[in-house]
Amino acid sequence: MKLAEILNGIEPVDQTWIERAQERTAQLVMPTRALGRLHEISERLCGILKTLKPSITRKAVLVMAGDHGIVNEGVSAYPQEVTAAMIQTFLVGGAGINSISRHVNADVWVVDMGIIPELDVTKMKRSDRLLINKIGNGTANFARGPAMSREMAEQSIMAGFQQASVLFQKGIEILGTGDMGIGNTTPSAAIGAVIAGADLDAMVGRGTGVDDKGLVRKQEAIRRGIEVNQPNRNDGLDVLSKVGGFEIGGIAGSILAGAFHNYPVVIDGFISTAGALIANALCPPVTDYLFAGHCSAEPGHRFMLSHLKLEPILNLEMRLGEGTGGALAMSIMEGAVRVFNDVLTFEESGVADKKP
Amino acid sequence: MKLAEILNGIEPVDQTWIERAQERTAQLVMPTRALGRLHEISERLCGILKTLKPSITRKAVLVMAGDHGIVNEGVSAYPQEVTAAMIQTFLVGGAGINSISRHVNADVWVVDMGIIPELDVTKMKRSDRLLINKIGNGTANFARGPAMSREMAEQSIMAGFQQASVLFQKGIEILGTGDMGIGNTTPSAAIGAVIAGADLDAMVGRGTGVDDKGLVRKQEAIRRGIEVNQPNRNDGLDVLSKVGGFEIGGIAGSILAGAFHNYPVVIDGFISTAGALIANALCPPVTDYLFAGHCSAEPGHRFMLSHLKLEPILNLEMRLGEGTGGALAMSIMEGAVRVFNDVLTFEESGVADKKP
Repeated sequence: MKLAEILNGIEPVDQTWIERAQERTAQLVMPTRALGRLHEISERLCGILKTLKPSITRKAVLVMAGDHGIVNEGVSAYPQEVTAAMIQTFLVGGAGINSISRHVNADVWVVDMGIIPELDVTKMKRSDRLLINKIGNGTANFARGPAMSREMAEQSIMAGFQQASVLFQKGIEILGTGDMGIGNTTPSAAIGAVIAGADLDAMVGRGTGVDDKGLVRKQEAIRRGIEVNQPNRNDGLDVLSKVGGFEIGGIAGSILAGAFHNYPVVIDGFISTAGALIANALCPPVTDYLFAGHCSAEPGHRFMLSHLKLEPILNLEMRLGEGTGGALAMSIMEGAVRVFNDVLTFEESGVADKKP
Repeated sequence: MKLAEILNGIEPVDQTWIERAQERTAQLVMPTRALGRLHEISERLCGILKTLKPSITRKAVLVMAGDHGIVNEGVSAYPQEVTAAMIQTFLVGGAGINSISRHVNADVWVVDMGIIPELDVTKMKRSDRLLINKIGNGTANFARGPAMSREMAEQSIMAGFQQASVLFQKGIEILGTGDMGIGNTTPSAAIGAVIAGADLDAMVGRGTGVDDKGLVRKQEAIRRGIEVNQPNRNDGLDVLSKVGGFEIGGIAGSILAGAFHNYPVVIDGFISTAGALIANALCPPVTDYLFAGHCSAEPGHRFMLSHLKLEPILNLEMRLGEGTGGALAMSIMEGAVRVFNDVLTFEESGVADKKP
């Protein structure tokens, strides 16, 4: 399948299913819409899944990993080797995303979308959950030219689409997006500044904890990157290729897969939402299928969410990435589904005749 | 045990356990405190439970039910018979709190703290989860005099303390408070106005959905109730007896039980937080043991939380009560515990030498 076919195959969510779901909500034995956003969540899931018996029991998180040439500008507090080291940590189940995914009963898959080292799978522990889909050995430094070619940008999106499509075909009912990549708040901030049109300095935060000087270097690197590359905000592939990253393309692709196959996708924080901005630039209706798991402590995140008109489910000052905020929000979404499916109606409970 | 002994037996949470927990958090393989409020939650749980291996697996929600004489002032959109009808719905597992409790794996117990009808337990379905602890057949109309005597206020607190203590003795590790009582946002708003000192009109919302005229009647009834009764904001028993409710006393008592036995208590929304205001007026250190499950759509709730210096975990425009917001937040708290207990350290994961 080609990217154009995917984009043409995505349709806005059918409002009639949402309306039918709203009718059921109105019958539940509680004051009108007394569970607030839980109703909106369950009803939109009904719309996406085209059912009045929604299920999001089978969950997966797809953690996309990549390295970034922009790290040479001194934009990160951590050395680049950490990207690969964390992949091994994900595989043995020892990272934040693993804990939270166990809690919500989601499978974690890790994709090497383009980290610098070549992983020797035979030497890795528990490599059964690792997928290799390397677009390159890290991106180029986008402060001096495009991060990748337009072809590579398209390849990264197609790879994410394929990986997520396989999960949906295996029976996964809801997908969380995750990321790992030292330096990846830098391309994400660039994407946010270009596509969401937010002020650059407001978009740039400390990521994993860069100091004051590092923050200035980061702002400068992004400013230069945008000047040098002149990304076209109306062309998602152009933005991704010029100031993006391989894992961000992978995330954009997995979002397109959810929308294409009619499954919900929960985005995590800053990096995942940069991926959502790319997907949305390519195909605006994708946001119908998206849930914003949380609002990150990274200050620019709220501008991205507001551009996408997505209201975050959680707001817990998290800023880890990996997919943690999205995975945790699945638990709230599952509670919403439980309410929708299980609560008795006024009539069933015998409270019917006492309705005001 | 007498109330004075309970109040004397409650001590602030031991900071040294919290500090030891913070040391463990600092070693987890992620940027410094990158999971934000999840760390604060798990560390405070360590402090409350005096352990570095916290567990909140065994959960219960105690739904306190009561009726209110103030309903005669036309303050509610629903008829008073709904209180008893909802008790039966809780017992058969058909209400919002049942669905959410099944989702988070919490037991639901219902206490008749003082509804108007005498329940005939032999005619009720699934009455094994019903506890009868009737302080009276509904409170008196507090717009015309005290809602109950000071003795009844103390009895309601002691009943809540006993019920919750039994649960903790049975092995429950975390308790959620819940409420049912047509009209109970009215005494709760009165308690909020008196104890939190918030402006009365800002404290009074639409509850289950009263119309504009009902809202004015509600404001007037509370204004008159405060004038007639002159509750002393520094005396929790006085406030509870004059403008409170039996279920609100029960909630206050169950909060005291958590603090007394060193277990965490998650409060729900507007009514539960009124109970927390009473408990806090009686014994300020109880807030160390409290987690605010969510911020309600009822507009006065945030003033109550701010008086208690509690930051809500969720903010999903819920306003059902029953304990739903607190129960749903347990899922986030359990995620926080999972991260604290399970995530590898930098050293264990081999990422140690790459820390900046």
